Amino acid sequence: MRHTLSVLVENRFGVLARIAGMFSGRGFNIDTLNSGPTHDPAISHITIVVRGDDAVLEQVIKQLDKLVDVIRIEDFRDGEYVDRELVLLRVSATKETRAEIVQLCDIFRAKVVDIQPTNLVIELTGHDAKITKFLKMLTPFGILDLARTGKVAMVRTE
Amino acid sequence: MRHTLSVLVENRFGVLARIAGMFSGRGFNIDTLNSGPTHDPAISHITIVVRGDDAVLEQVIKQLDKLVDVIRIEDFRDGEYVDRELVLLRVSATKETRAEIVQLCDIFRAKVVDIQPTNLVIELTGHDAKITKFLKMLTPFGILDLARTGKVAMVRTE
Repeated sequence: MRHTLSVLVENRFGVLARIAGMFSGRGFNIDTLNSGPTHDPAISHITIVVRGDDAVLEQVIKQLDKLVDVIRIEDFRDGEYVDRELVLLRVSATKETRAEIVQLCDIFRAKVVDIQPTNLVIELTGHDAKITKFLKMLTPFGILDLARTGKVAMVRTE
Repeated sequence: MRHTLSVLVENRFGVLARIAGMFSGRGFNIDTLNSGPTHDPAISHITIVVRGDDAVLEQVIKQLDKLVDVIRIEDFRDGEYVDRELVLLRVSATKETRAEIVQLCDIFRAKVVDIQPTNLVIELTGHDAKITKFLKMLTPFGILDLARTGKVAMVRTE
């Protein structure tokens, strides 16, 4: 099963390596991970998407909770939450195919952020399903380069 | 000095922990990091923003290059590149302040992705400078929660 974990940590040296190591040490494959600052410079926010056994994940969460650097862990398995991911991709584009690609961008509300004689760089934001669909539509043109941020998530709460 | 590194790696077990560990082991503080899939399921793409000494960074890059899992490293210190980051944030909003916040979202082309009686969840994509400015404008309302993906980058090339 796929899990999305949101971890608030003290912005200390090596904390990211320790957390990533804890998952791989317990046999979890990390699908995506991202780490960045919050509005408090002393605190960082890490979002991890992992696949693996539920019971083992429970143990990993307990272990994470024991780390002094960890402030809060949320497991988005059950809750209602908002999630988004950003993708930057380079696709082959000639003067013959460019118009069709730009039309697809309009449909998906993607933005062309760079243009070259032979390719376009496109930015897309959304859910997994939307991103997968967009990539599927662009694959026939030739995707040359692809960078995904991995998703960030936030609970819907009052 | 701040550096943005783009690393293509074989999607093998524990590779992310090894790479993060290599930076913290050499005294680099990781500002942001993200890791996600590419169009080839066997390959992942990691973007790391670090601060530290240029000469030491050269050494780290050489060491990374020696790892069997590492396919390609780009150092965006010099080159011309496109970069983007995604931010999800929750801000306090009452019926008195909501209109003003939504107007700020319009100016920054940010999207309201969830609404509650006492807060809004907002999605923003852009450069560092734009994100910093938006956060500065929203801080007086009360930022309750903030998750940043860290930036992804792509060279402008033919």
